[in-house]
Amino acid sequence: MVKKLTGPERQSALDQLTGWQNVEDRDAISKSFKFRSFIEAFGFMSRVALHAEKLNHHPEWSNVYNRVDILLTTHDVDGLSELDMQLASKIDREASR
Amino acid sequence: MVKKLTGPERQSALDQLTGWQNVEDRDAISKSFKFRSFIEAFGFMSRVALHAEKLNHHPEWSNVYNRVDILLTTHDVDGLSELDMQLASKIDREASR
Repeated sequence: MVKKLTGPERQSALDQLTGWQNVEDRDAISKSFKFRSFIEAFGFMSRVALHAEKLNHHPEWSNVYNRVDILLTTHDVDGLSELDMQLASKIDREASR
Repeated sequence: MVKKLTGPERQSALDQLTGWQNVEDRDAISKSFKFRSFIEAFGFMSRVALHAEKLNHHPEWSNVYNRVDILLTTHDVDGLSELDMQLASKIDREASR
């Protein structure tokens, strides 16, 4: 069973990531990514999709041409969990390939 | 050069599609799709992505788990064009596989 991160756990986890922002009206974090083309943007999404399915933890995301906006939250705990941090870390790694 | 559909052309084209709605605050059409799983939703998106790249016409879309929301518009004509109708038709075909 996944647990909601406490305030200090959340801060400490966020400090280890780059560019992820707290979302104003939801207990969630988000980040925007820009690529050179749709092919690169969707290639990135495809790699992230595989990680998400493997973790059984999925992003809320949107794509417009070369841009991908991603929001992470854990519905089961109504906030952030370790799963969000794991997925964020995978996402950042895939974005920087 | 792609042309903006006139009112009657647009209506006639929309009449040939099912479930696409005019978007309230933009000159665009949208439709929501629901699948049985993330795998099915993202599989659908992957097929649509290939069509989009081939047509060189891309959707604005978002995904949350098994749901995919798609908006189509043609920025170059500030409205709908034949490209939106072609892509909408491909999308519907892929959704019904």
